[in-house]
Amino acid sequence: MPLTVAQLSESDLLERIFPRLRTGIPWQECVVVGPGDDAAVLAVADGRVVVSIDTQVQDMDFRLQWPSGYHTTGFDVGWKAAAQNLSDINAMGGRATSLAVSLTLPGSTDVQWVEDLADGLNAAIRQLGADGCSVIGGDIGAGAQIAVTAAVTGSLEGRKPVLRSGAQPGDVVVLAGTVGRAAAGLALLESTHEYSSLQAEHLNLVQNQCCPLPPLAAGPAAAEAGSTAMLDISDGLVKDAQRLASASGVRIDFDPEVLSSLAEPLRSAADLLGIDPMEWVLGGGEDHGLLATVNPIVMPLPGFTAVGSVKAGSKGVTIGSQSPANVGWDHFAD
Amino acid sequence: MPLTVAQLSESDLLERIFPRLRTGIPWQECVVVGPGDDAAVLAVADGRVVVSIDTQVQDMDFRLQWPSGYHTTGFDVGWKAAAQNLSDINAMGGRATSLAVSLTLPGSTDVQWVEDLADGLNAAIRQLGADGCSVIGGDIGAGAQIAVTAAVTGSLEGRKPVLRSGAQPGDVVVLAGTVGRAAAGLALLESTHEYSSLQAEHLNLVQNQCCPLPPLAAGPAAAEAGSTAMLDISDGLVKDAQRLASASGVRIDFDPEVLSSLAEPLRSAADLLGIDPMEWVLGGGEDHGLLATVNPIVMPLPGFTAVGSVKAGSKGVTIGSQSPANVGWDHFAD
Repeated sequence: MPLTVAQLSESDLLERIFPRLRTGIPWQECVVVGPGDDAAVLAVADGRVVVSIDTQVQDMDFRLQWPSGYHTTGFDVGWKAAAQNLSDINAMGGRATSLAVSLTLPGSTDVQWVEDLADGLNAAIRQLGADGCSVIGGDIGAGAQIAVTAAVTGSLEGRKPVLRSGAQPGDVVVLAGTVGRAAAGLALLESTHEYSSLQAEHLNLVQNQCCPLPPLAAGPAAAEAGSTAMLDISDGLVKDAQRLASASGVRIDFDPEVLSSLAEPLRSAADLLGIDPMEWVLGGGEDHGLLATVNPIVMPLPGFTAVGSVKAGSKGVTIGSQSPANVGWDHFAD
Repeated sequence: MPLTVAQLSESDLLERIFPRLRTGIPWQECVVVGPGDDAAVLAVADGRVVVSIDTQVQDMDFRLQWPSGYHTTGFDVGWKAAAQNLSDINAMGGRATSLAVSLTLPGSTDVQWVEDLADGLNAAIRQLGADGCSVIGGDIGAGAQIAVTAAVTGSLEGRKPVLRSGAQPGDVVVLAGTVGRAAAGLALLESTHEYSSLQAEHLNLVQNQCCPLPPLAAGPAAAEAGSTAMLDISDGLVKDAQRLASASGVRIDFDPEVLSSLAEPLRSAADLLGIDPMEWVLGGGEDHGLLATVNPIVMPLPGFTAVGSVKAGSKGVTIGSQSPANVGWDHFAD
């Protein structure tokens, strides 16, 4: 019988987790007080701290077992918890400095699964390039479902935060990272196509759903270049572009040819499932790409692709000046 | 039919919550970017930020309906989420500057209950005196159980953080706030004594369980006075004193007469339930009182009562130099 969480005390479980959170990552000088006290203390050289929080809940944000036969690992959940939160700092133009993680676990959870979660947190921080980020604390409690909340802090390193509200008519709309891949992966996981027999190209899409790859160098680079507005695409390109357009009082007009080209890498999976890949491009979240607006003078901006332009007026989002509904996409509902 | 969470979008729900979070509390100057973007930005005058995180889960940390007939309100849950987190900053000698709140809610949750939760968060911040604290953001998602996670930041205002590890032999052990009251309230809620017929004294104990009163002025005052070690009592006086003793490599010896006097206000409820009130004093958490050690030279320390002394040696906790087991208490299990 594998060891379960119910058989360990909270402190025993934390003792198994914390050593895993520093593998290959130097302990940051900015950590004045690390895990183990009532709270952690971080040095903040910049005089400002960026803060966000995000939760994943079993059966809402992930399934432990999918119709395709895939079993979500602790590693996946840890990776995604880190990636989502690191992305929020990225979207402000900052770099993450700390994660505090609160775990809710059924007593029947395998301890190994929780250790894998710690490994996933650590691997995401390291492999996504968030080298300045340390896991500074957290807590563990019981519940009927697995839930992972992470709170993240970040530094702007002297830069201005990039808000959603600064886009100017005439700006270029640019994209870093991918769109639609995590949504394609989700559709594959939810399908009855057996996971273990998927081809490599499709497995990569599943990987993008389970362990997303937010482009963490791009946020600070865009801020440095004077990006006027930015957010991370967590709920879909059109919905998130609407948020940026609404906050800035402008219209975001996407280039239909560029959007079509974004759908190409998804076509094989879309054909397998009988879906229009544009649905994933326009509506798929969770790749945690960055959507930003910049003055044309700073183009080309390394790491970003031009995908449209900012127009005057508060008409939300258009594609080639047409409403997304007119180009076949009307999943506007919140 | 009351409006439920499932009938609103996340943004609609947030629009109902945020206005409630600023009632009677001035928006803090330190909030550079407030709710509504990918992350918030706080100004940090002190050059350091204190960070902690804490989760409450339905049926683990609270019941929606208790055997006594009491129904936990959203206000209670919001208050407690704030109080627990503000207490962690207090225990470092800091003052809270922000809360970010992540809510997990079943779709069937009444919107009114969630609005009450926002009111409870706001009321706790205001009534506990955390005037410098703003709710700077959060997110809302679905789940099978209600869960509330708050991440808190704080400022040390130029002081050294007070850790658990600095207690010195010869120090006085001091206590701020109450012990055992929340545990007594929990026992009353779990009993079959009808809530609505409880006498006022007992209702006050229930109130301490549902809406605890951490002594938020005491932490900064102790830090200012040079307190050598401090933590908040969230898991019980003996267990938390053991943590402090273990981190500091000392023995904490409580004065049995002082502990007995702490049990007196609990005697009436204990008699009602046929319990020894010392169980609540020694083992009851959740009042979020502060246990601290100070050099005798700084005594008396306003807001704190002397409850024992620090002895050399790493023997954990004693009561009148006896093991707690020898004075009738052996609930040591983690």
